[in-house]
Amino acid sequence: MQTALSAQHVRIDLGVRSYPIAIGAGLIDNPQTWAGLPPASAALIVTNTTVGPLYAQRLQAALQAHYQAVHCVTLPDGEAYKTWQTLHLIFDALLQNGCDRKTVLFALGGGVVGDMAGYAAASYMRGVPFVQVPTTLLAQVDSSVGGKTGINHPLGKNMMGAFYQPERVVCDLDALKTLPERELSAGLAEVIKYGPIADMVFLHWIEENLDALRAREPEALAHAVKRSCEIKAGVVGQDEREGGLRAILNFGHTFGHAIEAGLGYGQWLHGEAVGCGMVMAAELSHRLGLIDTALVQRLRALVQRAGLPVTGPRLAEQDNAGRYLALMRVDKKAEGGEIRFVVMDGPGQAALRAAPDALVREVIDACSVQ
Amino acid sequence: MQTALSAQHVRIDLGVRSYPIAIGAGLIDNPQTWAGLPPASAALIVTNTTVGPLYAQRLQAALQAHYQAVHCVTLPDGEAYKTWQTLHLIFDALLQNGCDRKTVLFALGGGVVGDMAGYAAASYMRGVPFVQVPTTLLAQVDSSVGGKTGINHPLGKNMMGAFYQPERVVCDLDALKTLPERELSAGLAEVIKYGPIADMVFLHWIEENLDALRAREPEALAHAVKRSCEIKAGVVGQDEREGGLRAILNFGHTFGHAIEAGLGYGQWLHGEAVGCGMVMAAELSHRLGLIDTALVQRLRALVQRAGLPVTGPRLAEQDNAGRYLALMRVDKKAEGGEIRFVVMDGPGQAALRAAPDALVREVIDACSVQ
Repeated sequence: MQTALSAQHVRIDLGVRSYPIAIGAGLIDNPQTWAGLPPASAALIVTNTTVGPLYAQRLQAALQAHYQAVHCVTLPDGEAYKTWQTLHLIFDALLQNGCDRKTVLFALGGGVVGDMAGYAAASYMRGVPFVQVPTTLLAQVDSSVGGKTGINHPLGKNMMGAFYQPERVVCDLDALKTLPERELSAGLAEVIKYGPIADMVFLHWIEENLDALRAREPEALAHAVKRSCEIKAGVVGQDEREGGLRAILNFGHTFGHAIEAGLGYGQWLHGEAVGCGMVMAAELSHRLGLIDTALVQRLRALVQRAGLPVTGPRLAEQDNAGRYLALMRVDKKAEGGEIRFVVMDGPGQAALRAAPDALVREVIDACSVQ
Repeated sequence: MQTALSAQHVRIDLGVRSYPIAIGAGLIDNPQTWAGLPPASAALIVTNTTVGPLYAQRLQAALQAHYQAVHCVTLPDGEAYKTWQTLHLIFDALLQNGCDRKTVLFALGGGVVGDMAGYAAASYMRGVPFVQVPTTLLAQVDSSVGGKTGINHPLGKNMMGAFYQPERVVCDLDALKTLPERELSAGLAEVIKYGPIADMVFLHWIEENLDALRAREPEALAHAVKRSCEIKAGVVGQDEREGGLRAILNFGHTFGHAIEAGLGYGQWLHGEAVGCGMVMAAELSHRLGLIDTALVQRLRALVQRAGLPVTGPRLAEQDNAGRYLALMRVDKKAEGGEIRFVVMDGPGQAALRAAPDALVREVIDACSVQ
């Protein structure tokens, strides 16, 4: 019999919108996990065709201790479905089941499910409570925490959405056992991210424990999730609505979003694009004179060891770098047409910077398929 | 030459989200009206096919003193278009024009334009600033004030949306000169509303000045808009997100929403449905023993004098009252399937109450076409 790790808690400190993140094994099946949420007669589980068959019935059983009716809606799986059409399936389910403005939504799945269920919760009757139940590593360490919700537009990622905080986040580490290899690697990209922008000790720990993480050793995963959530909680607690500091959590994401949009959503996983994007962002930091080349190499090697791509795809036959630039100009951090990059401003420090197009072109040429 | 009324101001007090309502003549054309908004390189005017040809170019000219680029998107006119499809036209315009997260939206039109532009502003890049420029009486006295935004779902009105406050509200009384008669009456429904729920002195003033209002006398309109905004400001200032008190502003709306949804959006104007709904709500209040029959008659007479319907339509061949009840059960104020009505709890006082279905059926039978 496996020794259960006792659940640990990280708190997101946002005044009246503060909430806890529970991290541990066996949480989904335990009715106690779901005690103390705002009272309601009904709950709606939002999940997808991949995660639903594995966990939805188990969550439903545990929730039945707290709600008269526990409904479930199953969305198609994948970033390509992070659209208004899919979002509307949630609204349809809410209205068809007569759900009122106290109904609690449970986002059971990865980042896409969490972003859509969160945006649906923010919007339904102008706001109902919701709970994040992330089942992928990426969602546990990043997207389920901090209240960013939204959907994609054909012209840009996460272009419509809301800052809307969950009532709590429940990271059941057991769910990571069923995660496909490729998704585990994608999640590791967001874990690695916290090193270069905030904590070189954690970066070193990841380097030492990468094999254990890829082998899904429970203690290693527990520490990776907890430390990631702690760092994210610290940043979000200082800047909930991304007035400034919070943007550093987007390290690698500006290049990454261009890759996702340029290839078409769902071709590369978000974490894969971010992994590759971090290498590009590090290279840009180096060319801006902010970090030495050894640190770029160190990050590239770690991203590669995590099973992630380190070379960007070609996005256009002619003027590939120009295509990357055009896609990056619709990034939410852009202002007046000027792209702003999250760069490393020394080891373990991040900053938001504009960069000359010519320099960015050099980086893209050096880091993508020619 | 007409004597210009100097602009008056009402303040909505919501802490960091406080904002002013300017009420006066000639405001749209005056560049000073638009000074002091959050700095941005671009603005987007959201209007419709009816209001746009009359005022969009004039607003655009006045805004050009403040923004490098002033874009405009024109939506189809009417409640039937308060849908996701129409909302998406705003997102398309924002993205096609490369609008960043500082872009300011201007809602130029009636309640439908304001609700959609506001929801688009709440959602675009998770929130950009917006300004309400209501051009109908209904929008000036009610929908542009208080931060409720949203769109309709085929199964219910305003089912998706956000509480999202504008930077300011600008009520140009000159815009009411071009308002069709039917729309003026619809706006008067929301003006009348403030009497029975909050201010019997104002109700008396409306009775005395109804002819002047229907003749669009500037001083009468100015007072009606100002006093309505003051009452709404007082309520919203105490209960921004409709935890309780704010619901009283929905007097007549529960019955009214059933009429709108039952006939199909756009058949009756929102204000027409509210006018008739107020008569039903007053009748219900009387049958609950809360007000005497003379007050019901007084309100019915005033609604009728305002040019509004006082008898509800038949919504079903069989069991008309049952159809009303079914439609009201998806109202946002319902909880656990129980409809909650805003009733008059004595003259000039409102309260939220459940009522037995049998009693509600009596009211519907007494107040709708048989």
